[in-house]
Amino acid sequence: MKAIGAPADLPVLMGDLAAQAREAARSLGLASTAQKNEALDAMARAIRSNAAAILQANAQDVADARAGGATAAFLDRLTLTQARVEAMADGVKVVREIDDPVGRVTERWQRPNGMTIERVRVPLGVVAVIFESRPNVCADAGVLCLKSGNAVILRGGSESFRSCRAIHACLVEGLREARLPEAAITLVPTRDRAAVGLLLSGMNGGIDVIVPRGGKSLVARVEAEARVPVFAHLEGVNHVYVDGAADLAMAKAVVLNSKMRRPGVCGAAETLLVDRSGVRDILKPLVEALIEAGCEVRGDSDVQGVDPRVRSAADSDWNTEYGDAIISARVVDGCGGAIDHIQRHGSRHTDAIVTEDPETAARFLNEVDSAIVLHNASTQFADGGEFGFGAEIGIATGKFHARGPVGAEQLTSFKYRVHGDGQVRP
Amino acid sequence: MKAIGAPADLPVLMGDLAAQAREAARSLGLASTAQKNEALDAMARAIRSNAAAILQANAQDVADARAGGATAAFLDRLTLTQARVEAMADGVKVVREIDDPVGRVTERWQRPNGMTIERVRVPLGVVAVIFESRPNVCADAGVLCLKSGNAVILRGGSESFRSCRAIHACLVEGLREARLPEAAITLVPTRDRAAVGLLLSGMNGGIDVIVPRGGKSLVARVEAEARVPVFAHLEGVNHVYVDGAADLAMAKAVVLNSKMRRPGVCGAAETLLVDRSGVRDILKPLVEALIEAGCEVRGDSDVQGVDPRVRSAADSDWNTEYGDAIISARVVDGCGGAIDHIQRHGSRHTDAIVTEDPETAARFLNEVDSAIVLHNASTQFADGGEFGFGAEIGIATGKFHARGPVGAEQLTSFKYRVHGDGQVRP
Repeated sequence: MKAIGAPADLPVLMGDLAAQAREAARSLGLASTAQKNEALDAMARAIRSNAAAILQANAQDVADARAGGATAAFLDRLTLTQARVEAMADGVKVVREIDDPVGRVTERWQRPNGMTIERVRVPLGVVAVIFESRPNVCADAGVLCLKSGNAVILRGGSESFRSCRAIHACLVEGLREARLPEAAITLVPTRDRAAVGLLLSGMNGGIDVIVPRGGKSLVARVEAEARVPVFAHLEGVNHVYVDGAADLAMAKAVVLNSKMRRPGVCGAAETLLVDRSGVRDILKPLVEALIEAGCEVRGDSDVQGVDPRVRSAADSDWNTEYGDAIISARVVDGCGGAIDHIQRHGSRHTDAIVTEDPETAARFLNEVDSAIVLHNASTQFADGGEFGFGAEIGIATGKFHARGPVGAEQLTSFKYRVHGDGQVRP
Repeated sequence: MKAIGAPADLPVLMGDLAAQAREAARSLGLASTAQKNEALDAMARAIRSNAAAILQANAQDVADARAGGATAAFLDRLTLTQARVEAMADGVKVVREIDDPVGRVTERWQRPNGMTIERVRVPLGVVAVIFESRPNVCADAGVLCLKSGNAVILRGGSESFRSCRAIHACLVEGLREARLPEAAITLVPTRDRAAVGLLLSGMNGGIDVIVPRGGKSLVARVEAEARVPVFAHLEGVNHVYVDGAADLAMAKAVVLNSKMRRPGVCGAAETLLVDRSGVRDILKPLVEALIEAGCEVRGDSDVQGVDPRVRSAADSDWNTEYGDAIISARVVDGCGGAIDHIQRHGSRHTDAIVTEDPETAARFLNEVDSAIVLHNASTQFADGGEFGFGAEIGIATGKFHARGPVGAEQLTSFKYRVHGDGQVRP
């Protein structure tokens, strides 16, 4: 594959790619699970056997990015290692093992006139994945779309262009070995940023859904400009509410894990809410444990009252996804107060309650309108793998079509198959 | 309710309506089935007991429309009769009887760490329904949204303004009797057409989904302008493919019913495809039966060859939704030829095969990428009521979220409830 330079080519090039992807989607939608798994096996093999080439391409990307003044965090996301390449191949094998959602009959019923109606899963069609620096998204997203019978057009950040090209070559090798159309997984073969705008336009019906994988500015741009449906992941302003009837040891474990296991993931907690009845016996030890674990705590006056090391929270803290070892903390009036706070400040991603009272827990799980609501478990379980989906292409914060972890099943639609023996409608 | 005149009020007015609807959606999402059913019972009663007022308001709308030069078809859609008002009340009772989708646990599984995960249906939130002349949509859409726990903002055609206001008053009476918030079903209280543009903008997150109910131009405008998800119903360019292995009597019954039962509904067939092996024994009698039933047949040269009354089909005929007693007809090379034709010309709405061969049927149902595919049954079954959904708010031709008849279940999303006993993520 050669990179295309002249922007004048771009709409034509992209139109051709979309048309080929559509055609590939048609065959892929009818491909057997065995054939798709054969491709996935071959892809994992190809990634392992081409590890040196992938690492070499990646080293060039990293060198360019470093020369261009990229931050350390950016370079970390961009950099592949032997271990990361192997993890990528392992990820392909995980997707190989998950159930194929395509063709699964999810409901079947008979009508009084004798007709049988089945609801059966079918692929969505052509998925466009727009991502930033992490080149492994190329493999992760590509194979999950394949398993769910969708063609995918991948558009990575220009800094990871060579790495993606090397990974993509392995995926194509797998498609070829399994005699599946190569256009089933397409990498946009140019760094021209105008390609993103073309994908967001939907390419005149060429794209069925767009999945942005990256930071807030990318997701915001996609949300604002896309003319087709988007599986958007906005913020994870997640809460842990510790009820007055909580077990302190459990609350400590859940709160610390929710915030500190990996403070930067979208499932990390950003705000701790504690019932007013537990200020002394629960809030105080929780705050101490957080601070001792290296977490900055920003609280209202009640929280500042339990520990002098608590900083004062500004209004904006209640709406902030820190992505870091910082937590905001507030005292609320019971479960109702917690629900109100979450309703006002949350991002409908993931929220947890810690309580020994099953009725309070049921109320929280019922009334908090978030994709994931947990009772006595860490918010960091907000993850497709932890849900048992095998893999995810992201976490959707909208309510339309997919919500929460987007696995293979959420990359499908359905159709109705009606079996009659000559029925006509009166 | 008084109509608002000055357009300067409009963004403020609409913003207030959306905010009240959002607040109502929150209580409605938590309302019990019994309470919603109590409201539906009261609504049906109110519609019956206020029939005279509804008919009087409608008579004024009809008189104005007639004076304005409305077509006979338009006046028919606009006009209510005692029977139509009763049908509207019956429709409310039908929705009362359907299962409440909200709170239904659709999946439940346990993770190796002991956590139980449930997937449970929740309402979408605030639905905006934009419709044209038929005032009964006001009741039909209003109650289906209520049953599925959604608040709804209804915006009818300006010609049906008085009729909608009278019907809406009955719905509000029902909400009030059941102590549900009146803003759960809101009618935009102005004829100002700018209100539609505001709804399509999504009102800064105030609207979760838009349902257009009306002709092609309305749907096209909504699709082009909406900044939020749309349950759009585009065309129904539906096919009946009669295989060489079809039973002739069944084929006749299915084809005639698919086209002629009600030629104007979206589930009506527009194109007849017949296997080349059946030109003499199947196509010829089918064409004769259609013409004798009063249907105009437009065919390719093969079809013209079987009957001199067949007119010549233009290229555009293969893509046309006639909405009338006209059918295009073409000879194809077997099931593969039919699938190719449908892929090229269909609108992915509803397509049927008539055959006695189960393998051919299975191939057709598998490969035709339409919302509804039928074997040996009429395309006119493309209807939520006929599917057993009780009622529908429309038929979605997209693949995202809803597809085919949009009933109460498709007006819901879901969330994950996770039950733990202190699990943290390693």
